[in-house]
Amino acid sequence: MRATIMYGAGDVRVENVPDPSIVEPTDAILRVVRACICGSDLWPYNDMPRSTTGQSMGHEAIGVVEAVGRDVRRVKRGQVVVMPFAFSDGTCEFCSEGLPTACVHGGFLGNGGLNGAQAEALRIPLADGTLYPLDVTEADARMPSLLTLSDVMGTGHHAAVVARVAPGQRVAVVGDGAVGLCGVIAAKRLGAEQIIILGRRPDRIALARELGATDVVSERGQEAVERVRALTGGRGAHAVLECVGTRDATLTSIEIARPGGAVGRVGVPHYDAVPGAARTFFKNVIVGGGPAPVRAYIDELLPEILDGRIDPGRVFDRSVGLDGVPDGYRAMNARESIKVMVTP
Amino acid sequence: MRATIMYGAGDVRVENVPDPSIVEPTDAILRVVRACICGSDLWPYNDMPRSTTGQSMGHEAIGVVEAVGRDVRRVKRGQVVVMPFAFSDGTCEFCSEGLPTACVHGGFLGNGGLNGAQAEALRIPLADGTLYPLDVTEADARMPSLLTLSDVMGTGHHAAVVARVAPGQRVAVVGDGAVGLCGVIAAKRLGAEQIIILGRRPDRIALARELGATDVVSERGQEAVERVRALTGGRGAHAVLECVGTRDATLTSIEIARPGGAVGRVGVPHYDAVPGAARTFFKNVIVGGGPAPVRAYIDELLPEILDGRIDPGRVFDRSVGLDGVPDGYRAMNARESIKVMVTP
Repeated sequence: MRATIMYGAGDVRVENVPDPSIVEPTDAILRVVRACICGSDLWPYNDMPRSTTGQSMGHEAIGVVEAVGRDVRRVKRGQVVVMPFAFSDGTCEFCSEGLPTACVHGGFLGNGGLNGAQAEALRIPLADGTLYPLDVTEADARMPSLLTLSDVMGTGHHAAVVARVAPGQRVAVVGDGAVGLCGVIAAKRLGAEQIIILGRRPDRIALARELGATDVVSERGQEAVERVRALTGGRGAHAVLECVGTRDATLTSIEIARPGGAVGRVGVPHYDAVPGAARTFFKNVIVGGGPAPVRAYIDELLPEILDGRIDPGRVFDRSVGLDGVPDGYRAMNARESIKVMVTP
Repeated sequence: MRATIMYGAGDVRVENVPDPSIVEPTDAILRVVRACICGSDLWPYNDMPRSTTGQSMGHEAIGVVEAVGRDVRRVKRGQVVVMPFAFSDGTCEFCSEGLPTACVHGGFLGNGGLNGAQAEALRIPLADGTLYPLDVTEADARMPSLLTLSDVMGTGHHAAVVARVAPGQRVAVVGDGAVGLCGVIAAKRLGAEQIIILGRRPDRIALARELGATDVVSERGQEAVERVRALTGGRGAHAVLECVGTRDATLTSIEIARPGGAVGRVGVPHYDAVPGAARTFFKNVIVGGGPAPVRAYIDELLPEILDGRIDPGRVFDRSVGLDGVPDGYRAMNARESIKVMVTP
């Protein structure tokens, strides 16, 4: 079958690889119906050291179960399922508490020798705990929005949950990528009164406004901080969704948080220490977040996708086949595209 | 009157100063019945640059109201009151939300030209919002515990609240100073099942055990982390109370937190950035905390002091008059004393 392998920064290839097969009795084989390229895939696209074996890419998918191991009980052949970016047993203490990304038997797909989802198919460990069956066909028109349940919508939602968005609040979303845009959707459905997006690309800002953003701040650094303060009566935002992952974006997030507020970080951190230790302290601002437990959020988000109340699939502005994946990376990295959907 | 002035590291003097007087119509004058020396006073005791004017010290007190300005309505002459370390108007949006340390008209006592409480008397701004009247006499035997409502008990409680201590949880308290010991009390009354104190001084550890600590970890750094992991089934603590304020203590707190857990910081941070940005992220650990809104916690804590359910006054192991304050600083700094009470 064909799969996407990254051999180093800027070097993404679609190649023939062996078909996946059941290894553990708890595995399933997923035929990929839709996958996508993640903003976090752009980090290695920019800084991955050259590798002779390469890294199989992709951790977001919807697919059809092709085969199951002999110990798989809940997931059935032929089901259309969401594949969250983390695999998890569904039964450990962390899974039971709603944090499957900390599953004691879990891990991340498209990592550590496992195949990625930008491929025709892949092996799914712990299939019963990991895969979320949907009651739709693979031709369903809502497929783009359903696909976001595997990562990006759940991740934006996680930022909003950790930042404790509540009805009537002032919310700031730092970053206008696909996660930030899903953060806008999440903040709106959780009842935010004001949603300020910090970003500067006209197409993304326009979409953010359609999705619920009430204000736009296109400045950066201290100027952005002052603009947000001005927009929030001098106080700052109750909840800040950090959807970038750089030190600067994190410091901005902390600076614009209202005393007693919270910052939800979902951008994979590319910094060693969280800046502003005294700022967060003297304002009593909470900083939290991490890999989103998207599996645990599907129950809450799925009904709103099915009935059209939210439409996070709008973050996809380009659709490619497997052959188009390398150019998809290039386009996302060049900010020509917000997020690329892949139909193998 | 006599008051404590610090002129530089290690240089604490008790001197005659002008009596305090009403400046604003919202002021009160407080005659100090009990004050104390705070662990945070030891930071300037170790690193304050030499000053010719000096800094008036002390931010924790119980006292009797001697005089009130013409706009003071609620507080009356002759009342015994708790003086929280922050003054606040009691009416702004932050005070209404339970965060008086962020009061838009507030500030910190013993700072910025205001007199401190290690003195015979001091001026209290915004008396109606700041002072908390008690229905006790100044001879009350519970005075040491009541005094802790001005800072140290409320601060330990804040660490526990931010760290989201809940019934049945495993809790770790980093630091065996007076705040850490109050953190043990706070964790116990909030229902923690296991309370691990990280500290190494025998007298403090013995007291921690009496107050509710179930386990003691006297190692430091990576050894401490491994000991806590071993004591918590390999998982770490649901809630970690950081009661020191150094980078190392903060990093230890982060390392021993369980995935999905929280760290409540109440040690004034002596570091620029919160270490372990990737550790907190991949574990989805929340880091929060700051100056405790102790004024807002008195309603909850006072009844338990009055009926003897908690006895945080046990953190005082030395009592001095004003003349003894300089030696009290020396003794606390040398770790000969946990916390010094001052009876002017």
